[in-house]
Amino acid sequence: MNSTSQTWHFPEDAPLQLESGYALKRAHVAYATFGELNTDKSNAILVCHALTGDQYATGENPKLGRQGWWSKVVGDGCPIDTTRYFVICANTLSSCYGSSGPSDINPETGKVYGIDFPFVSIGDMVEAQYRLARSLGIEKLLAVVGGSAGGMQVLEFARKYGDFFHAAMPIATTAQESPRNIALHEVSRQAIMADPDWLHGRYAEEGKIPALGLRIARMSSHVNYMSPEKILQRFGRSPSRPGDAKMFYKPDFEIEDYLHHQGVSFKNRFDANSYLYLSKALDMFDLASGPDGLVGVFRNTGARFCVIAFSSDWLQPPEESRKIVRALTMCNADVSFVVITTDNGHDAFLLDEPEMFSVIRGFIDATYRLRVEGGSAPAAAVGA
Amino acid sequence: MNSTSQTWHFPEDAPLQLESGYALKRAHVAYATFGELNTDKSNAILVCHALTGDQYATGENPKLGRQGWWSKVVGDGCPIDTTRYFVICANTLSSCYGSSGPSDINPETGKVYGIDFPFVSIGDMVEAQYRLARSLGIEKLLAVVGGSAGGMQVLEFARKYGDFFHAAMPIATTAQESPRNIALHEVSRQAIMADPDWLHGRYAEEGKIPALGLRIARMSSHVNYMSPEKILQRFGRSPSRPGDAKMFYKPDFEIEDYLHHQGVSFKNRFDANSYLYLSKALDMFDLASGPDGLVGVFRNTGARFCVIAFSSDWLQPPEESRKIVRALTMCNADVSFVVITTDNGHDAFLLDEPEMFSVIRGFIDATYRLRVEGGSAPAAAVGA
Repeated sequence: MNSTSQTWHFPEDAPLQLESGYALKRAHVAYATFGELNTDKSNAILVCHALTGDQYATGENPKLGRQGWWSKVVGDGCPIDTTRYFVICANTLSSCYGSSGPSDINPETGKVYGIDFPFVSIGDMVEAQYRLARSLGIEKLLAVVGGSAGGMQVLEFARKYGDFFHAAMPIATTAQESPRNIALHEVSRQAIMADPDWLHGRYAEEGKIPALGLRIARMSSHVNYMSPEKILQRFGRSPSRPGDAKMFYKPDFEIEDYLHHQGVSFKNRFDANSYLYLSKALDMFDLASGPDGLVGVFRNTGARFCVIAFSSDWLQPPEESRKIVRALTMCNADVSFVVITTDNGHDAFLLDEPEMFSVIRGFIDATYRLRVEGGSAPAAAVGA
Repeated sequence: MNSTSQTWHFPEDAPLQLESGYALKRAHVAYATFGELNTDKSNAILVCHALTGDQYATGENPKLGRQGWWSKVVGDGCPIDTTRYFVICANTLSSCYGSSGPSDINPETGKVYGIDFPFVSIGDMVEAQYRLARSLGIEKLLAVVGGSAGGMQVLEFARKYGDFFHAAMPIATTAQESPRNIALHEVSRQAIMADPDWLHGRYAEEGKIPALGLRIARMSSHVNYMSPEKILQRFGRSPSRPGDAKMFYKPDFEIEDYLHHQGVSFKNRFDANSYLYLSKALDMFDLASGPDGLVGVFRNTGARFCVIAFSSDWLQPPEESRKIVRALTMCNADVSFVVITTDNGHDAFLLDEPEMFSVIRGFIDATYRLRVEGGSAPAAAVGA
């Protein structure tokens, strides 16, 4: 099945007001839906994508010609079963797959925004998804689910619209981006901006893309999405395919080939300025900065939470999830915590993780039984 | 005290034969010595520096105007006490502080080598240091000591010249570079080569340096020298000094400022091609590739070993040291293993680590008593 994307436009009389105070003109959100909304609109699940993800959570992604990024989680018979649930997935603001972002034309100048596009926070991204869901007639989501930067959006929903969902699943994420990850993002941003074809963000006007910079940015970040154990298992010190190129120009090891492949694939699919905006939004994400920190955010929540972390994830290590669980527990919230033992590193949430599949299925189905059908759920699984 | 560097030239009738088969013409080694060689030449310790280090292990570094990189370890009254020992520290081949490297003039063309310089392995670096020590009249070193890439050289000494030293201290190192570290090196190399001022390695001829590429290479690697815990403790999410520059151009957080500072300082002090050669030498280092792996390397060693690792070092994690210790133990070698608990990450070997200082002092002094004075040593400290 092919995913199809639609676009929802903010009405002119109720434009998107960014947290910075800037009113974004003609803001729009590209989104895809899977399954059918039931008559009482009680089966809607919002899936939030990660940093460079898109709205094509499942089915064939028509832009990239490959399966959607969460095809094993969302679909008919899948953990988030589209024969029962109505799934919405929206491209985040600042991204490059159809939602408002730096590649858009600035209505005030008639030229591409580039880095004149306003800063968009995780809160702004959530605002856009909230408005979209409301426009679809949804009064309350069954669940908000997402991994990595998608998990940040899930947590931000709890801050901004804590009554708008019955359940939340933040996966492989944090309530506050770590300085180490800020540092890694800054390396990637500098690699993009060092490319002479970046042209101070005006590459689109000149018909160029900062391809080398994008490749290096992705190579640098991709190393950190995998666990050292996984890299060792999968690549070891296996030599690269033989080539006759000169030393330094030619990878000597398979792991280098693999990174180059990731870099090339990324520069073909992602926009450089979007990467700058999105990574900066992650850096600025700090749910604990308000009064009473995280406890202040979760104090009045009536939602059920299931927090998932992966043992070998050191981009968002289990300790980050533990902080979220601790705050939720201090608020007497309904929370389960599952740490899944795996070598897949941060990327685990996108990969074949049967335990994650079971936990998602169990938690979502139990939420439906408990909160919509009024039944009882089995005791929640609680991991380390 | 000012360190002074001398240069030793390979004699014309005995040139440096690289492991690749290439005979490097006019090869030379820049080195510094500290303390006095005693009359029976039994108190010489070779200190091997890391990837971008230099021969100025202690005293005032005249090139960089700062204290030598191991001033707390080497010096009068220090753990390696220069009132008792004669310390030699040589700049590795391929580096840029006076030893033969890609910035040299190629005698065959009269132009700077650039990337026409031959590949130099860790084994070649060790060969140069061995020849240098022999030229100083030394028949056997009291000890070979080094951290990180310096530790690789220590281990390589065991393979090539196992009878040439009484004791070896490989610190924060590995016997076989990991694919993860190869990946990180490749990111840095690509950042350098993507800089238009790299000019396919011919930047010197044009009077340029690939400054941006060098900065990004260093920023990328520097993140990995620190532990995530240390970054959190030292920088947290503290904001950067205020500035009026535009978003993306200006760091928002202190950690970004710090990385930029490291990048700028690096591009002022290091040569881009040297970085390519040296990082590639690390990638190619694999002491376990021979017959019987590591055990084959250590089988006949008569030296004492003290292996040091740091708990929070995930560039060369304690598990890498454990493999070395395991092989030495299987060879019934005299080996101590100390894992030091610290938040300082990989950089710990360069920092203020009192436990490391004590272990170095104890091990070196005991080696002198045991092997030179013929006395007895107290039981070696063995850590986790």
